[in-house]
Amino acid sequence: MQIAVLLYQGFTTLDAVGPYELLARLPGAETVFVAKEAGPVRNDQGSLALVADKALAEVPRPDIVLVPGGPDSRAAMDDPEIQAWLRTADETSTWTTSVCTGSLILAAAGVLDGRRATTHWLAHEELRALGVEPTGERVVFDGKYVTAAGVSSGIDMALHLLGRIGGDETAQTIQLLTEYDPQPPYDAGSPDKAPAEIVARWRGVKAEDLPQGR
Amino acid sequence: MQIAVLLYQGFTTLDAVGPYELLARLPGAETVFVAKEAGPVRNDQGSLALVADKALAEVPRPDIVLVPGGPDSRAAMDDPEIQAWLRTADETSTWTTSVCTGSLILAAAGVLDGRRATTHWLAHEELRALGVEPTGERVVFDGKYVTAAGVSSGIDMALHLLGRIGGDETAQTIQLLTEYDPQPPYDAGSPDKAPAEIVARWRGVKAEDLPQGR
Repeated sequence: MQIAVLLYQGFTTLDAVGPYELLARLPGAETVFVAKEAGPVRNDQGSLALVADKALAEVPRPDIVLVPGGPDSRAAMDDPEIQAWLRTADETSTWTTSVCTGSLILAAAGVLDGRRATTHWLAHEELRALGVEPTGERVVFDGKYVTAAGVSSGIDMALHLLGRIGGDETAQTIQLLTEYDPQPPYDAGSPDKAPAEIVARWRGVKAEDLPQGR
Repeated sequence: MQIAVLLYQGFTTLDAVGPYELLARLPGAETVFVAKEAGPVRNDQGSLALVADKALAEVPRPDIVLVPGGPDSRAAMDDPEIQAWLRTADETSTWTTSVCTGSLILAAAGVLDGRRATTHWLAHEELRALGVEPTGERVVFDGKYVTAAGVSSGIDMALHLLGRIGGDETAQTIQLLTEYDPQPPYDAGSPDKAPAEIVARWRGVKAEDLPQGR
């Protein structure tokens, strides 16, 4: 079971690392971070680089493809090499997955055509413009395509996937070992729940104008 | 407001990246990943390296110190250079924080003496052996010392901290932008909630014998 996590300049770190932390604990899994070229890839905030151990060409047939989002997801949507890799990898993948605006990158590659999918709540229009109707759900399964909403939702996606792949007990064990027993002190994690004035302030702000990723 | 995230060989990635993703969005914050030497630092699972942009000596007085845990936390507990940096940084820090077994590293440095603190549920005995009585809470504030339980709990810690530093609206805004509206498909994230047979299987397993971090 090979899991490939795609990195590109400007990715959002938790989009990649949240599901990675859980999925990579799957017994027998081999996880590899990939990018156009092997080496450090800087994130959206500019304050952290993750190392891609392999170039895309070295990992042509992963079992799971994981695409993080980022405010600069356009860079990956418009990149012919990344798009070609996604299309090819998707031909043989068992699961093709994304977090946040990673679904825009998959949609740009055409692999979500006619599928149910989700994305960051601020990117619904962008997903729609790519011909994919966003759902309001946090994690969406449609066949082998699994998409998650904004940033932190990839952790929930990973638990769902672990259950499907390894069974409930494997998923529960990994939830226990990562102590994923969320107790946020606020209940503002979705536009339905956050104070209306905060939601209103952010609605309509373009991705590239967000101060620090999303 | 300078935030320093400590990296060392064998750290657990989500311990560092979970709170980083939220804290670094604090308006005016500058975040820097630090290690004994600048450069890539490999994690506990071996499949990912994060780049430390600065060496410890270059970041002597961060406002927030964040120490992730790892199954190899002993490496940081026994490292004189890391321990000396922690003690010095703690002298001027506004907040000294840890996630998971990061509290063992702080305890080894002596900065948690007489404090309330927490750690990963499997490391309570180890914390106690260092003279710090663990609480069963997910996030513990004691003055400027903030410790979180296992791995994913650092995200909750970050939200608490954001509220204290930037106020409720700042914390809620960052919760909304990272869509932290947890919906795990299982309720197995703590030893009180997970199936008893899974908990029993892991209790008493030593950190270094865990298959893939914790």
